Amino acid sequence: MGQQPREDIANTVRILVATDCHLGYMEKDEIRRHDSFEAFEEICSIAEQKEVDFVLLGGDLFHENKPSRSTLVKAIEILRRHCLNDRPVQFQVVSDQAVNFQNKFGHVNYEDPHFNVGLPVFSIHGNHDDPAGVDNLSAVDILSACNLVNYFGKMVLGGSGVGEITVYPILIRKGSTAVALYGLGNIRDERLNRMFQTPHAVQWMRPEAQEECQVSDWFNILVLHQNRVKTNPKNAINEHFLPRFLDFVVWGHEHECLIDPQEVPGMGFHLTQPGSSVATSLIEGESKPKHVLLLEIKENQYRPTKIPLTSVRPFEYTEIILKDEADIDPDDQNSILEHLDKVVRNLIERSSKKTVNRSELKLPLVRIKVDYSGFMTINPQRFGQKYVGKVANPQDILIFSKSSKKSKAEAKIDDFERLRPEELNQQNIEALVAENNLKMEIIPVNDLDVALHNFVNKDDRLAFYSCVQYNLQETRHKIAKDSDTAKFEEEDIILKVGESLEERLKERSNHSKDAPQSTSNAASFEDIRSKTAAGVGTAISFSDDEDTTQISDTKSATRGRKWSSAASRSSRGALESDKSKTSTRGRGRGRGRGRGRGANNLKQTTLDASLGFRQSQSISCCKSSSPKSC
Amino acid sequence: MGQQPREDIANTVRILVATDCHLGYMEKDEIRRHDSFEAFEEICSIAEQKEVDFVLLGGDLFHENKPSRSTLVKAIEILRRHCLNDRPVQFQVVSDQAVNFQNKFGHVNYEDPHFNVGLPVFSIHGNHDDPAGVDNLSAVDILSACNLVNYFGKMVLGGSGVGEITVYPILIRKGSTAVALYGLGNIRDERLNRMFQTPHAVQWMRPEAQEECQVSDWFNILVLHQNRVKTNPKNAINEHFLPRFLDFVVWGHEHECLIDPQEVPGMGFHLTQPGSSVATSLIEGESKPKHVLLLEIKENQYRPTKIPLTSVRPFEYTEIILKDEADIDPDDQNSILEHLDKVVRNLIERSSKKTVNRSELKLPLVRIKVDYSGFMTINPQRFGQKYVGKVANPQDILIFSKSSKKSKAEAKIDDFERLRPEELNQQNIEALVAENNLKMEIIPVNDLDVALHNFVNKDDRLAFYSCVQYNLQETRHKIAKDSDTAKFEEEDIILKVGESLEERLKERSNHSKDAPQSTSNAASFEDIRSKTAAGVGTAISFSDDEDTTQISDTKSATRGRKWSSAASRSSRGALESDKSKTSTRGRGRGRGRGRGRGANNLKQTTLDASLGFRQSQSISCCKSSSPKSC
Repeated sequence: MGQQPREDIANTVRILVATDCHLGYMEKDEIRRHDSFEAFEEICSIAEQKEVDFVLLGGDLFHENKPSRSTLVKAIEILRRHCLNDRPVQFQVVSDQAVNFQNKFGHVNYEDPHFNVGLPVFSIHGNHDDPAGVDNLSAVDILSACNLVNYFGKMVLGGSGVGEITVYPILIRKGSTAVALYGLGNIRDERLNRMFQTPHAVQWMRPEAQEECQVSDWFNILVLHQNRVKTNPKNAINEHFLPRFLDFVVWGHEHECLIDPQEVPGMGFHLTQPGSSVATSLIEGESKPKHVLLLEIKENQYRPTKIPLTSVRPFEYTEIILKDEADIDPDDQNSILEHLDKVVRNLIERSSKKTVNRSELKLPLVRIKVDYSGFMTINPQRFGQKYVGKVANPQDILIFSKSSKKSKAEAKIDDFERLRPEELNQQNIEALVAENNLKMEIIPVNDLDVALHNFVNKDDRLAFYSCVQYNLQETRHKIAKDSDTAKFEEEDIILKVGESLEERLKERSNHSKDAPQSTSNAASFEDIRSKTAAGVGTAISFSDDEDTTQISDTKSATRGRKWSSAASRSSRGALESDKSKTSTRGRGRGRGRGRGRGANNLKQTTLDASLGFRQSQSISCCKSSSPKSC
Repeated sequence: MGQQPREDIANTVRILVATDCHLGYMEKDEIRRHDSFEAFEEICSIAEQKEVDFVLLGGDLFHENKPSRSTLVKAIEILRRHCLNDRPVQFQVVSDQAVNFQNKFGHVNYEDPHFNVGLPVFSIHGNHDDPAGVDNLSAVDILSACNLVNYFGKMVLGGSGVGEITVYPILIRKGSTAVALYGLGNIRDERLNRMFQTPHAVQWMRPEAQEECQVSDWFNILVLHQNRVKTNPKNAINEHFLPRFLDFVVWGHEHECLIDPQEVPGMGFHLTQPGSSVATSLIEGESKPKHVLLLEIKENQYRPTKIPLTSVRPFEYTEIILKDEADIDPDDQNSILEHLDKVVRNLIERSSKKTVNRSELKLPLVRIKVDYSGFMTINPQRFGQKYVGKVANPQDILIFSKSSKKSKAEAKIDDFERLRPEELNQQNIEALVAENNLKMEIIPVNDLDVALHNFVNKDDRLAFYSCVQYNLQETRHKIAKDSDTAKFEEEDIILKVGESLEERLKERSNHSKDAPQSTSNAASFEDIRSKTAAGVGTAISFSDDEDTTQISDTKSATRGRKWSSAASRSSRGALESDKSKTSTRGRGRGRGRGRGRGANNLKQTTLDASLGFRQSQSISCCKSSSPKSC
């Protein structure tokens, strides 16, 4: 950061991306009770050290729908320590904040004149901390009321049948960079799946490109919290359901750390799956090193930097098939025990080698998945007794599976394949119901799962009634509409680029040539687009500011061929670095200061009025009617 | 307030006293769900309007030990709206704040540089929101973590047997007035009762009078949350248990509004029982108009002003004895119904007359206690049906009692005498256990109550185990100690008044004669002391600044005759109004400002060091070994 020239910093939105912190996980376990908090504390510390503009969380900040007092207090303390300080916030939220943030105060937290917020946190909810109850409140709403988190992406599922949602982005500006941040808090997968396949059910509001913007095109980020890949595709969201105008997707909920952004083939956007910061299932996916992502966005380029979490408890995982092991005699129970003991000791050894440099050595989590086909099982509790004080989970080191016919890929995906007894009273019970009991035709198993979950965990007495009503209604609806199979036309995204914009951009591109640092440093950004987009569009380097006159043409010509469009847009790179527009909010603190946005910066107010959703005509709406739309 | 001269204001600590707000009470009732919040909102509004220095709450801010998300969010919103503003806080906390406030931040909330706290709130916990769980956290701790409430009076009950507590006051200074604020969060009555009767079990830390103080003597306030009068005296706290050095006691927990301060005979202190701000039992005591108290303290004088709460739902209560009513024919069920209908209509009428001027008319609560001796009962639910939309509680207008032998006084006191079905799953169930089932000798009924309560409401799995262990231990202890009946001597309160102080006070008394406004206005303070203390000590008016040379003598001579001592102390009245010492914290807000106390005022720092508990030798300890001590 220190090496970057000031102008570069003033035009770069720097985000720390993390997800699934599950605060309060195992809070009653003597050994592991602090794990979730220590990881979250580390995430906040990294954000502070890296001096990011804000933290973006992908849901499941809390493990329990109703977190304990202790968990709430600890969460608040961590956020208060790291987020409240005198560092000036250098970006502006120019969308209608009352639409973005649905608390009583209706503004982004750092603009509240009574708090010194130096590190804003933006978060959606997950399936663990989703809104419930009469007032439809999430545990994240408590942090939002405290002004410590900017909670967004809470949808009101209106209408009968499958429901409709409209996703309004938070419009963020920093110098010449503009980010449209879309949030979609967890919706039951099966429902959202159906919505994505229902015309007009999901509407994406998009900011209009206007003359006054003086910024490059919007960099569109979506953060969501859903099943990504499942054996049952109805119970997950396919990346191809998402609209193509997106540039970057942050996928929460999946705990395996697959943080390096990958291009989604044919969709024109990249996707990161940061994974959880604390292992809540002792499966292979969770044993991979945990990371968070530093995402730097400059105009239409982004640079990902993955940062390892060093406070996370080590977790060693292996799988063995008893009948394949040479040193085991099926008739000798002791030979099995000796073999397993050797495996455990090896894992502990492996763990300690990895962590040898750390001052605070944590007991490792150890899990061995044992295929015991042809053998007797042994008691995992008794087996674990001798590892008390040596591993963090002596009671459940071993897990037995009868057959290894399942492909490894499948095994990785299914978090719920083995339920430990203590988890049965949690929402995991739904998986049991789904797997074993209620293979019903009339009411979808998933709906029953949710009803059971809401009944048990959220005190929703009407959960089953609502479930039946909803399905009844939907069935009726389907029967009624079965004859007229509507054909849905792909809706155009309206992008009214004013004609005079071309002229202005031309002018500015000439000015920007006087700023060589910006140009040279821009090259340090990994031009992911140009690397991956080669062959689709023309790869144009970050600093390339030629060819701006053709932008609007390119835009409209490449409908449906987003990738080359994005590449073209990146050509408008370092056109602008109007530092006078950088927020001076930090300075205005103190008695009687106004809301930063309006008071300090007339330019912004204009921008606000012209870009914000207050003027409904300045927003175009992209209806995601099918996987192919947008 | 506007009429008072500036000097008077600068030396007057102005406190809004309220208690038992029970936020979240009846939160699932369609009609009454907002009641507790509206009353609390009104209390905060009054505090703002009256421009008090702070709000003092006497416990049970929350109705549930684990408040719902909705209740937490609403509580936070109300506090945030009213407590965060740019008004400068004009008093200083000069005691060791880390001792007073046991959260992670360890300071009074308005000194946190990252929050604009303009209206500090101080609160103890009650029996509803008492600390529980592994981390011993109260729901109030959540508000404390948010920096919206200064939670104090949480005791750690150490040691075996009955336990010991040490009560440290918050030392508050504003100009020439000094207030020592003692808080005692709810402790199970039976336990606290035993502690008060055990030598050295309750220790009251007292600030030492020192030369550097330049303030009049400390005005000592205690706020507690306990049963005050009960049919079973073991299950309540007697006012005479409290130490005599106190000047003023705020008694929470009792819901009946008896807010006018009364002298406690023989104890030398006055006592207010503000009562709840929301009726949680439909008993006669709760039907009295609800009030809060504006308490203004200037040196050793106080002025109480009671302020009615106008947002509270009207509540009409009456009692009838069927056999005494002339128009009822015992053989005609209809004549009973007609009579009761008439009574209900009268109560509704009475209520509407009282509230005729209010813009927002609320449905009244109506309760008729019916002595049905010699009659059949009627179904209260069915009876109430025709009053839906006319009263707030149609389902439980009537309550039947068989015999009216109980004296009226007793009936008023016992909140739990009639349990409505919907309350049975609440902690009221304890009352049932106590009354009906477990009249045991081995383990006290109250201990079992608490164990049951903790087991049900606080997820304390070890509740019963702890209960048995505790009683076992105590019994052993008692047996062992039975032979040596210790005699407890009354411990002296050490009051080291420096000799040179006499000289200084003499000097200052001459100076103060130059400030005639102070003198004349001081007379507007009700000199409660002189009114009630007549005959015990010499009634000296507020402005009387004669006779100061004899203070230290009076002090030491009147040990145990506190009243005349207090009267004498008040003679040091308007000696001082050193405005340079008024906090300028409000001005220093903004980036990089330090903690108000240390940064702005060197004088205070000296005061802090000399008075604070950091120097343990500057505190004297008053051990309350028996009702007669102190």
